[in-house]
Amino acid sequence: MQNDPQSSAESELLVCVKCRRGPEAPADDRRPGRRLYDRLCALGPPAGVRLRAVECLQNCEAGCTVALRGAGRWTYVYGQLDDEAHAETLLDGAGRYHATADGLIPWRERPEHFKRNCVARVPPATFPDPLQETDQ
Amino acid sequence: MQNDPQSSAESELLVCVKCRRGPEAPADDRRPGRRLYDRLCALGPPAGVRLRAVECLQNCEAGCTVALRGAGRWTYVYGQLDDEAHAETLLDGAGRYHATADGLIPWRERPEHFKRNCVARVPPATFPDPLQETDQ
Repeated sequence: MQNDPQSSAESELLVCVKCRRGPEAPADDRRPGRRLYDRLCALGPPAGVRLRAVECLQNCEAGCTVALRGAGRWTYVYGQLDDEAHAETLLDGAGRYHATADGLIPWRERPEHFKRNCVARVPPATFPDPLQETDQ
Repeated sequence: MQNDPQSSAESELLVCVKCRRGPEAPADDRRPGRRLYDRLCALGPPAGVRLRAVECLQNCEAGCTVALRGAGRWTYVYGQLDDEAHAETLLDGAGRYHATADGLIPWRERPEHFKRNCVARVPPATFPDPLQETDQ
Protein backbone atom coordinates (compact mmCIF):
# COMPACT_ATOMS: atom_id res chain seq x y z
CA MET A 1 0.00 0.00 0.00
CA GLN A 2 3.02 2.20 -0.32
CA ASN A 3 1.33 4.32 -2.96
CA ASP A 4 -1.97 4.62 -1.19
CA PRO A 5 -1.43 5.44 2.48
CA GLN A 6 -5.08 6.31 3.06
CA SER A 7 -6.03 2.68 2.66
CA SER A 8 -3.38 1.23 4.94
CA ALA A 9 -5.96 0.13 7.49
CA GLU A 10 -8.13 -1.56 4.89
CA SER A 11 -7.98 -5.00 3.44
CA GLU A 12 -8.67 -5.44 -0.25
CA LEU A 13 -10.65 -8.09 -2.07
CA LEU A 14 -9.37 -8.05 -5.64
CA VAL A 15 -11.69 -9.71 -8.14
CA CYS A 16 -10.57 -10.66 -11.64
CA VAL A 17 -13.37 -9.37 -13.85
CA LYS A 18 -12.00 -11.13 -16.94
CA CYS A 19 -12.27 -14.67 -15.59
CA ARG A 20 -14.16 -17.12 -17.80
CA ARG A 21 -14.25 -19.87 -15.19
CA GLY A 22 -11.85 -22.12 -17.06
CA PRO A 23 -10.19 -21.48 -20.40
CA GLU A 24 -12.78 -23.30 -22.50
CA ALA A 25 -15.87 -21.34 -21.56
CA PRO A 26 -16.97 -18.95 -24.29
CA ALA A 27 -16.70 -15.22 -23.79
CA ASP A 28 -19.89 -13.24 -23.49
CA ASP A 29 -20.80 -9.67 -22.66
CA ARG A 30 -20.42 -10.27 -18.95
CA ARG A 31 -17.90 -12.89 -17.99
CA PRO A 32 -18.24 -15.00 -14.84
CA GLY A 33 -15.56 -12.91 -13.13
CA ARG A 34 -17.52 -9.75 -13.83
CA ARG A 35 -20.72 -11.41 -12.61
CA LEU A 36 -18.92 -12.40 -9.41
CA TYR A 37 -17.71 -8.84 -8.93
CA ASP A 38 -21.18 -7.42 -9.55
CA ARG A 39 -22.72 -9.87 -7.10
CA LEU A 40 -20.15 -8.99 -4.44
CA CYS A 41 -20.89 -5.30 -5.00
CA ALA A 42 -24.61 -5.95 -4.62
CA LEU A 43 -24.14 -7.90 -1.41
CA GLY A 44 -21.64 -5.34 -0.12
CA PRO A 45 -18.19 -6.08 1.32
CA PRO A 46 -17.70 -6.42 5.09
CA ALA A 47 -16.52 -3.42 7.09
CA GLY A 48 -12.88 -2.62 6.45
CA VAL A 49 -12.72 -4.50 3.17
CA ARG A 50 -12.42 -2.65 -0.11
CA LEU A 51 -13.71 -4.41 -3.22
CA ARG A 52 -11.66 -3.78 -6.35
CA ALA A 53 -11.97 -5.06 -9.90
CA VAL A 54 -8.71 -6.19 -11.43
CA GLU A 55 -7.65 -7.46 -14.82
CA CYS A 56 -6.31 -11.02 -14.82
CA LEU A 57 -4.63 -12.62 -11.85
CA GLN A 58 -3.22 -15.26 -14.23
CA ASN A 59 -5.01 -18.21 -12.77
CA CYS A 60 -7.09 -18.47 -15.93
CA GLU A 61 -7.43 -22.25 -15.99
CA ALA A 62 -9.03 -22.34 -12.55
CA GLY A 63 -11.14 -19.17 -12.32
CA CYS A 64 -12.98 -17.32 -11.11
CA THR A 65 -10.07 -15.94 -9.13
CA VAL A 66 -9.68 -13.37 -6.35
CA ALA A 67 -6.94 -12.13 -4.04
CA LEU A 68 -7.13 -10.91 -0.46
CA ARG A 69 -4.47 -8.54 0.80
CA GLY A 70 -3.88 -5.91 3.43
CA ALA A 71 -1.07 -4.04 5.13
CA GLY A 72 1.03 -6.37 7.27
CA ARG A 73 -0.91 -9.41 6.08
CA TRP A 74 -0.13 -12.38 3.88
CA THR A 75 -1.77 -12.02 0.48
CA TYR A 76 -3.90 -15.02 -0.54
CA VAL A 77 -5.05 -15.96 -4.04
CA TYR A 78 -8.12 -18.19 -4.33
CA GLY A 79 -9.51 -19.88 -7.42
CA GLN A 80 -12.36 -22.13 -8.57
CA LEU A 81 -14.93 -19.60 -7.45
CA ASP A 82 -18.46 -19.74 -8.82
CA ASP A 83 -20.11 -16.38 -9.22
CA GLU A 84 -23.41 -17.68 -7.90
CA ALA A 85 -22.45 -20.28 -5.32
CA HIS A 86 -19.50 -18.63 -3.63
CA ALA A 87 -20.15 -14.91 -3.32
CA GLU A 88 -21.43 -15.05 0.24
CA THR A 89 -18.76 -17.40 1.55
CA LEU A 90 -16.16 -15.22 -0.12
CA LEU A 91 -17.41 -12.13 1.69
CA ASP A 92 -17.53 -14.07 4.93
CA GLY A 93 -13.93 -15.14 4.38
CA ALA A 94 -12.89 -11.59 3.52
CA GLY A 95 -14.31 -10.41 6.84
CA ARG A 96 -12.45 -13.15 8.71
CA TYR A 97 -9.27 -12.23 6.88
CA HIS A 98 -9.62 -8.58 7.79
CA ALA A 99 -10.21 -9.52 11.41
CA THR A 100 -6.71 -11.04 11.62
CA ALA A 101 -3.51 -9.07 12.08
CA ASP A 102 -1.45 -11.19 9.70
CA GLY A 103 -3.99 -12.59 7.21
CA LEU A 104 -3.84 -16.10 8.66
CA ILE A 105 -7.41 -17.17 9.34
CA PRO A 106 -7.33 -19.97 11.93
CA TRP A 107 -7.90 -23.27 10.14
CA ARG A 108 -11.12 -24.14 11.91
CA GLU A 109 -12.60 -20.75 11.06
CA ARG A 110 -11.47 -20.81 7.46
CA PRO A 111 -14.21 -21.21 4.86
CA GLU A 112 -14.13 -24.67 3.27
CA HIS A 113 -13.61 -23.15 -0.15
CA PHE A 114 -10.50 -21.35 1.09
CA LYS A 115 -9.10 -24.57 2.54
CA ARG A 116 -9.28 -26.36 -0.79
CA ASN A 117 -8.71 -23.67 -3.38
CA CYS A 118 -5.76 -21.58 -2.32
CA VAL A 119 -3.69 -20.96 -5.43
CA ALA A 120 -0.77 -19.25 -3.72
CA ARG A 121 0.11 -16.83 -0.96
CA VAL A 122 2.73 -14.11 -0.67
CA PRO A 123 4.10 -12.78 2.62
CA PRO A 124 3.82 -9.20 3.86
CA ALA A 125 6.89 -6.96 3.64
CA THR A 126 8.04 -8.05 7.07
CA PHE A 127 8.04 -11.77 7.90
CA PRO A 128 10.20 -14.18 9.90
CA ASP A 129 13.22 -15.71 8.19
CA PRO A 130 12.55 -19.47 8.18
CA LEU A 131 16.28 -20.21 8.01
CA GLN A 132 16.90 -18.33 11.23
CA GLU A 133 14.35 -20.60 12.82
CA THR A 134 15.71 -23.89 11.51
CA ASP A 135 19.44 -23.23 11.58
CA GLN A 136 19.67 -22.12 15.17
CA MET B 1 7.05 -2.48 1.32
CA GLN B 2 5.20 -0.24 3.70
CA ASN B 3 7.04 -1.69 6.68
CA ASP B 4 10.46 -1.57 5.13
CA PRO B 5 10.97 1.76 3.39
CA GLN B 6 14.70 1.20 2.98
CA SER B 7 14.05 -1.51 0.44
CA SER B 8 11.49 0.39 -1.63
CA ALA B 9 13.83 0.60 -4.61
CA GLU B 10 14.61 -3.11 -4.52
CA SER B 11 12.81 -6.02 -6.02
CA GLU B 12 12.56 -9.20 -4.03
CA LEU B 13 12.91 -12.80 -5.09
CA LEU B 14 11.12 -14.85 -2.44
CA VAL B 15 12.05 -18.53 -2.42
CA CYS B 16 10.01 -21.13 -0.56
CA VAL B 17 12.61 -23.16 1.30
CA LYS B 18 10.10 -25.81 2.35
CA CYS B 19 9.15 -26.93 -1.17
CA ARG B 20 9.44 -30.66 -1.80
CA ARG B 21 8.90 -30.37 -5.55
CA GLY B 22 5.50 -32.00 -5.46
CA PRO B 23 3.65 -33.38 -2.46
CA GLU B 24 4.84 -36.97 -2.88
CA ALA B 25 8.57 -36.44 -2.70
CA PRO B 26 10.04 -37.50 0.64
CA ALA B 27 11.41 -34.93 3.04
CA ASP B 28 15.12 -34.91 3.66
CA ASP B 29 17.51 -32.69 5.54
CA ARG B 30 17.60 -30.19 2.72
CA ARG B 31 14.45 -29.93 0.67
CA PRO B 32 14.52 -29.00 -3.03
CA GLY B 33 13.28 -25.51 -2.13
CA ARG B 34 16.18 -25.04 0.22
CA ARG B 35 18.59 -26.37 -2.39
CA LEU B 36 17.18 -23.87 -4.89
CA TYR B 37 17.64 -21.05 -2.40
CA ASP B 38 21.21 -22.12 -1.62
CA ARG B 39 22.06 -22.34 -5.30
CA LEU B 40 20.61 -18.87 -5.95
CA CYS B 41 22.66 -17.50 -3.05
CA ALA B 42 25.80 -19.11 -4.47
CA LEU B 43 25.18 -17.69 -7.92
CA GLY B 44 24.22 -14.31 -6.47
CA PRO B 45 21.11 -12.29 -7.31
CA PRO B 46 21.25 -9.56 -9.97
CA ALA B 47 21.78 -5.95 -8.92
CA GLY B 48 18.73 -4.48 -7.22
CA VAL B 49 17.19 -7.84 -6.37
CA ARG B 50 17.08 -9.07 -2.80
CA LEU B 51 16.94 -12.81 -2.25
CA ARG B 52 14.76 -13.91 0.68
CA ALA B 53 13.85 -17.31 2.04
CA VAL B 54 10.18 -17.74 2.87
CA GLU B 55 8.08 -20.46 4.41
CA CYS B 56 5.44 -21.92 2.08
CA LEU B 57 3.86 -19.97 -0.74
CA GLN B 58 1.08 -22.61 -0.80
CA ASN B 59 1.76 -23.94 -4.24
CA CYS B 60 2.92 -27.20 -2.71
CA GLU B 61 1.68 -29.50 -5.46
CA ALA B 62 3.70 -27.70 -8.12
CA GLY B 63 6.92 -26.59 -6.39
CA CYS B 64 9.58 -25.43 -6.20
CA THR B 65 7.89 -22.05 -5.97
CA VAL B 66 9.11 -18.46 -5.89
CA ALA B 67 7.59 -14.98 -6.01
CA LEU B 68 8.93 -11.79 -7.54
CA ARG B 69 7.75 -8.48 -6.17
CA GLY B 70 8.77 -4.86 -5.89
CA ALA B 71 7.32 -1.45 -5.13
CA GLY B 72 4.93 -0.36 -7.86
CA ARG B 73 5.19 -3.70 -9.64
CA TRP B 74 2.89 -6.63 -10.17
CA THR B 75 3.85 -9.57 -7.96
CA TYR B 76 4.35 -12.84 -9.86
CA VAL B 77 4.35 -16.36 -8.43
CA TYR B 78 6.13 -19.06 -10.42
CA GLY B 79 6.11 -22.81 -9.85
CA GLN B 80 7.53 -26.06 -11.26
CA LEU B 81 11.07 -24.87 -10.64
CA ASP B 82 13.90 -27.37 -10.51
CA ASP B 83 16.66 -26.46 -8.12
CA GLU B 84 19.35 -27.57 -10.54
CA ALA B 85 17.94 -26.78 -13.95
CA HIS B 86 16.27 -23.42 -13.34
CA ALA B 87 18.41 -21.38 -10.98
CA GLU B 88 20.18 -19.40 -13.68
CA THR B 89 17.07 -18.69 -15.76
CA LEU B 90 15.32 -17.61 -12.58
CA LEU B 91 18.04 -15.07 -11.77
CA ASP B 92 17.97 -13.88 -15.37
CA GLY B 93 14.20 -13.42 -15.10
CA ALA B 94 14.55 -11.63 -11.77
CA GLY B 95 16.92 -9.15 -13.38
CA ARG B 96 14.51 -8.58 -16.26
CA TYR B 97 11.68 -8.10 -13.78
CA HIS B 98 13.65 -5.54 -11.81
CA ALA B 99 14.47 -3.68 -15.02
CA THR B 100 10.77 -2.97 -15.59
CA ALA B 101 8.79 -0.24 -13.87
CA ASP B 102 5.63 -2.32 -13.44
CA GLY B 103 6.87 -5.91 -13.26
CA LEU B 104 5.59 -6.77 -16.73
CA ILE B 105 8.48 -8.32 -18.64
CA PRO B 106 7.76 -7.98 -22.37
CA TRP B 107 6.58 -11.37 -23.67
CA ARG B 108 9.46 -11.89 -26.09
CA GLU B 109 11.99 -11.19 -23.35
CA ARG B 110 10.29 -13.36 -20.78
CA PRO B 111 12.09 -16.59 -19.86
CA GLU B 112 10.33 -19.64 -21.30
CA HIS B 113 9.82 -21.05 -17.82
CA PHE B 114 8.01 -17.88 -16.75
CA LYS B 115 5.72 -18.07 -19.79
CA ARG B 116 4.53 -21.55 -18.92
CA ASN B 117 4.62 -21.68 -15.13
CA CYS B 118 3.03 -18.55 -13.76
CA VAL B 119 0.84 -19.61 -10.86
CA ALA B 120 -0.77 -16.24 -10.21
CA ARG B 121 -0.03 -12.54 -10.14
CA VAL B 122 -1.23 -9.74 -7.86
CA PRO B 123 -1.31 -6.06 -8.82
CA PRO B 124 0.63 -3.27 -7.13
CA ALA B 125 -1.25 -0.95 -4.77
CA THR B 126 -2.08 1.40 -7.63
CA PHE B 127 -3.42 -0.08 -10.85
CA PRO B 128 -5.97 0.89 -13.53
CA ASP B 129 -9.61 0.02 -12.93
CA PRO B 130 -10.53 -2.36 -15.77
CA LEU B 131 -14.21 -1.40 -15.49
CA GLN B 132 -13.42 2.23 -16.15
CA GLU B 133 -11.75 1.10 -19.34
CA THR B 134 -14.54 -1.15 -20.59
CA ASP B 135 -17.61 0.76 -19.43
CA GLN B 136 -16.70 4.08 -20.95
